[in-house]
Amino acid sequence: MPRTIGVVLFPQFELLDVFGPMEMFGVLPEQFSIRMLGPSTDPVASTQGPRTDIDHAYEDAPPLDVLFVPGGAGTRVHAEDERLLGWLRRRAEQAEIVASVCTGAASLAMAGVLDGYRATSNKRAFQWVTEQGPNVEWVKEARWVQDRNRWTSSGVAAGIDMALALIASLHGEEVAQTIADRTEYDWHRDAAWDPFAAKNGLV
Amino acid sequence: MPRTIGVVLFPQFELLDVFGPMEMFGVLPEQFSIRMLGPSTDPVASTQGPRTDIDHAYEDAPPLDVLFVPGGAGTRVHAEDERLLGWLRRRAEQAEIVASVCTGAASLAMAGVLDGYRATSNKRAFQWVTEQGPNVEWVKEARWVQDRNRWTSSGVAAGIDMALALIASLHGEEVAQTIADRTEYDWHRDAAWDPFAAKNGLV
Repeated sequence: MPRTIGVVLFPQFELLDVFGPMEMFGVLPEQFSIRMLGPSTDPVASTQGPRTDIDHAYEDAPPLDVLFVPGGAGTRVHAEDERLLGWLRRRAEQAEIVASVCTGAASLAMAGVLDGYRATSNKRAFQWVTEQGPNVEWVKEARWVQDRNRWTSSGVAAGIDMALALIASLHGEEVAQTIADRTEYDWHRDAAWDPFAAKNGLV
Repeated sequence: MPRTIGVVLFPQFELLDVFGPMEMFGVLPEQFSIRMLGPSTDPVASTQGPRTDIDHAYEDAPPLDVLFVPGGAGTRVHAEDERLLGWLRRRAEQAEIVASVCTGAASLAMAGVLDGYRATSNKRAFQWVTEQGPNVEWVKEARWVQDRNRWTSSGVAAGIDMALALIASLHGEEVAQTIADRTEYDWHRDAAWDPFAAKNGLV
């Protein structure tokens, strides 16, 4: 049985936050089944324009093995979206793995899902994100952070490196490297590699 | 006026071929307007599963400044799709820039659009792709190739590096580097960088 990945979409999600990782998981259809979730079953538009079809409204999603939360400009209004935050809280309790890319960590933090965990996020939006989760142990310099079953990555493209690391943790390094080679992707295997922390004055 | 990018979708397109480059172009909405094109206005499913909404059927697309052709498993049937190939041929004549990612170069080659040009493609599928264009000067080792207004990249993730190089050629290196930094992407600026040619026994 493949693991079900629930991708939490919302208006103005960031394209690559979603489709970078889904490319990597999607190479293994026998291991991962991707379901796109939205506020309703209407297509959801990204910040960049393209719209994605939705498989299930949040509440109608099947049980999720991986709860996957991308970031994007749309994250900014999630603090007032108790429907989304309550749903994230409940689904995070049930999921085997909770993962975010970029400012998706802010949505998880608003829901309290990262309280007591180490986590990271987009380096340009770092101050705003960390203000959303005063009880999170934020890591300034990291490509991604894994703490128990919570995986959080830095901005946008960092999600690809985290996805490969997550695949490696479940299916071995060799499988992840094969996916990187097939997609001609130069995988950063080191979670501590993060030139963008310094570029944004965080270290 | 922004340049209009027409993204040529088809069933079983490869997710990252499309959304890696569109992330980069999408950071500059005043410079680039992204239009998703399909066989009809019905949503189109990727090889990985997620479905994308379509703005226009091929024939109803507005004039395109950039004709953008991704690859994917669906490319394999394009040799018999004279509707698509004829349309590609006509639109390529009118476009300022013609670009492909991965096996998208095979679709362009089948349409004759790369005849007399240097070009590259996915390194795992390289033999099949090159058989689709006997009059193309195929380059075995390259992250991407630019020959006049034809830009072709290697497999999947290579499209991101090509997109940034294309943006640099239109708007300057500094703009492209700013986009790479904002998306926390480790841009390979060297078109000759290509470890995947050797990994696939091409050099």
